[in-house]
Amino acid sequence: MQRLAALKRAAFDEAGFDGYLIFNSSNLIFFTSLPGNVSLLVPRDGEATIYVYSVNYEQARNEAKGFRVEQVKRGEDLMGKIAAQVKEAGIKSLAVDVLGVEGWRSLKRKTKGEASLKVNPTFVSQLRSVKDKAEIELMRKAGELTSLGMETAYEVLRAGLSEIEVAAEIEYAMRKHGSYGTAFDTAVSSGPASAFPHGGCTEREIRTGELVVVDFGAVYEAYRSDMTRTLVVGNPSDKQLKLHAIVKKAQEEAFVVIKPNVKARAVDAVARGIIEEAGYGECFVHGLGHGVGLDIHEAPTLNSVSKERLQVGNVVTDEPGIYLPNYGGVRIEDTVLVVKDGAEKLTKGQYELGRRLPG
Amino acid sequence: MQRLAALKRAAFDEAGFDGYLIFNSSNLIFFTSLPGNVSLLVPRDGEATIYVYSVNYEQARNEAKGFRVEQVKRGEDLMGKIAAQVKEAGIKSLAVDVLGVEGWRSLKRKTKGEASLKVNPTFVSQLRSVKDKAEIELMRKAGELTSLGMETAYEVLRAGLSEIEVAAEIEYAMRKHGSYGTAFDTAVSSGPASAFPHGGCTEREIRTGELVVVDFGAVYEAYRSDMTRTLVVGNPSDKQLKLHAIVKKAQEEAFVVIKPNVKARAVDAVARGIIEEAGYGECFVHGLGHGVGLDIHEAPTLNSVSKERLQVGNVVTDEPGIYLPNYGGVRIEDTVLVVKDGAEKLTKGQYELGRRLPG
Repeated sequence: MQRLAALKRAAFDEAGFDGYLIFNSSNLIFFTSLPGNVSLLVPRDGEATIYVYSVNYEQARNEAKGFRVEQVKRGEDLMGKIAAQVKEAGIKSLAVDVLGVEGWRSLKRKTKGEASLKVNPTFVSQLRSVKDKAEIELMRKAGELTSLGMETAYEVLRAGLSEIEVAAEIEYAMRKHGSYGTAFDTAVSSGPASAFPHGGCTEREIRTGELVVVDFGAVYEAYRSDMTRTLVVGNPSDKQLKLHAIVKKAQEEAFVVIKPNVKARAVDAVARGIIEEAGYGECFVHGLGHGVGLDIHEAPTLNSVSKERLQVGNVVTDEPGIYLPNYGGVRIEDTVLVVKDGAEKLTKGQYELGRRLPG
Repeated sequence: MQRLAALKRAAFDEAGFDGYLIFNSSNLIFFTSLPGNVSLLVPRDGEATIYVYSVNYEQARNEAKGFRVEQVKRGEDLMGKIAAQVKEAGIKSLAVDVLGVEGWRSLKRKTKGEASLKVNPTFVSQLRSVKDKAEIELMRKAGELTSLGMETAYEVLRAGLSEIEVAAEIEYAMRKHGSYGTAFDTAVSSGPASAFPHGGCTEREIRTGELVVVDFGAVYEAYRSDMTRTLVVGNPSDKQLKLHAIVKKAQEEAFVVIKPNVKARAVDAVARGIIEEAGYGECFVHGLGHGVGLDIHEAPTLNSVSKERLQVGNVVTDEPGIYLPNYGGVRIEDTVLVVKDGAEKLTKGQYELGRRLPG
C-alpha cells in the first residue's frame, strides 16, 4: 500500500494524471504481491481494482488484500470492463504502463469521450529501481543462494561434464537451499560459445583448458539475482590469465566508484577505460550493468549513454567482459546494492580462473 | 527456410502483404533458430534481415545461416533502421506480428508515405501451431524428460519435504538427463494451495493426507512440455479418491476424442460434461487445454469458446481439474500430439493418487 501511495504521488500529485493502469506482470506483482493478475486500475480516490481471469479468481480473492477483485470470465471484454470502471471512477486522464497496439486501440475506443490515454511506464520503473527494506531482504537472500550456486559450480566443474550437467548441479544446490527458481536461463558457455555474451547452455562436453563462462541467478520469492564467473578446467594459459586479470580489475575498480549520486555512465566508463587501456575496448560489447529486481533487466542501466545517477536502494550488476571471436570470453559479474556510503555486494565469492581462492 | 517459405505463402501470396516484420521472441526463434535477436524483416523478394544488438551480433553472424544480419549499436534507432530497409526493399504493405503502442507509433512515423502497417500475429501462430517433423522430435524428447521428472516426483514425495525441495528433485532429474530448463515455474501446490490452478511452489512443508498438485515441464532445445499429476502422501480419503476418479475419467475420455478435424471446443465439452455430470462443473475454472511448443501457451486453445478444429501436428494439453476452495484441488494433465488417426501422449505415466501404477 506504501507502494501505491508512492505511485499516486508521482503519477497524480506531480504529473497530473488521475488514473494509472498496469498490465506488465512484474509491475502487477510489485503492487499486488500476487502473480496471475491481468491488470490493475489505480484511481486517484477509492480502491484499486485487480482484473483477473476465472482461473486465478479464487486465489486473488484470497490473497489480494486491500484491492477490489474483478473477475474476467471467458469471452468477456477486458478493455470494456476497464473502460466502465474508468468512467465510474471519474478518471479523465489515464496513464498506462505498457500495452500492445491492438489493446491500446480497443481501450482508446472504449474510453472515448471519457478519458485521455497516455503511455508512461517510468512512474513504476522509477519506483521499482529503488528497493525498499523488504525488497532488499529478499534480494539479499537471492544473492546468498546465488553465491552458494557458484561455489557448487567451482566444486563440480570438470572435463567431460556437459554444460547442462553443470547447470543441473548449480540449480539443484540453490533449489535445495530454498531458491524459488532460476532468475533466467542458466548459462554455462564453454569454449567457442564463451566468446558470446549469451552463449547459452547445451549438451556440449567441457574440455580441459577452455574458458567456461558461468552466469546464472537464484530467485527468492519473486526477486532475482545475477552472477557470473569464468572458469578453466586445469591450468589456465597465460593469455587466459591476462584476460581474466583485466576483467577482474575492471570489475573491482567499477565497484569502488559505485555510490549514491554518481552517474551510471561514469561507472561504466571506469570499467571500459581499463579494458580499453589494455587494448580490448572493441571486445567489451555490452554495457557494464543493469538493474535487477523482479525482472532480471530493469532500471537503472549502466552503459555509455545512461542518463541516471545512482541512488541508495538501487540494485545493479557490475559485469565487464572481454569476448574474442573464435577464441573465448571472460566475464565477471556481481549483483550490487547501492548504500549510503558506497556499495555492497549481494553476490559474493572471489575466484581465480581455475580454482577457488579463500575469502 | 521452409518456414519462411510457408510464411510467405500465407502472408504474401494469400493475404497480399509484401513484407512481414517480427518482434516476438519465440517467433524469432521459430524462423532463425537463434535467441537474442530483436527483429526480423521478411520481404517478398530477397534476403530477410535479422536486427541484433551489438551484444549478440557475433553470435548471430556465426549462427544465423541464410539471413542478412544488421547490427544495432547502442543509441542507434532500431525503427529508423527497419524503416530504411522497408524502403530499400520496396515494401508497400507491411504486416507486424506484435508491437507495443510506442514502438508502433515510431515505426508508423518512419515508414510514412512508404508503407502501410497492419498488425497480424496469426500468420505465424498458425504456422507454429502445426509442428513439423523436426519440432515433433524435440517435443517428444521434452515429453520423455517430463515423464521422467514425474516419476521422480512420485519417488521422492513424502511428508515433511517442502514444496520447493520436491521441485528441486524433479528439476534435477530432468536436467541430469538433458533438459534445457523448465518450461515454466514448476508448481508443487500442497494443501489449500492445491485449490488454486496456479498454486505455485513455496517453502511450505507437505503434510500427510493432503492433495499435492505437481505441474511442470522440461524443455528440449527451445521446445516445451507440460504435465500434471495430483498426489497424496499416505492414504487418500474417499472424497479425494472420488475427485481424482472424476478428473481421470474426464482426462481419458477427452483424450479419446482428440483427432484431426474435431472441434477444439468439442474436446473441452467432453471433459466438462463428465465433471458437470458429477456435480463439479463450477469447480472446473479453466479451459481443457492449450497448445504447447516454443511457448507454454500457444495456439490452438481448447475451451468452450474455441473456434479452431484440431489438425495433424497440433500439440495440446489435456488437463481437466476440479478445485474446491478451502479444501484442495485435483488436476491431471498430459501433452498430446494430434496424429493422423487420433492422438499420442508425449507425456506418459498413469498414476494413482498415492502410489504409482505399473504401465
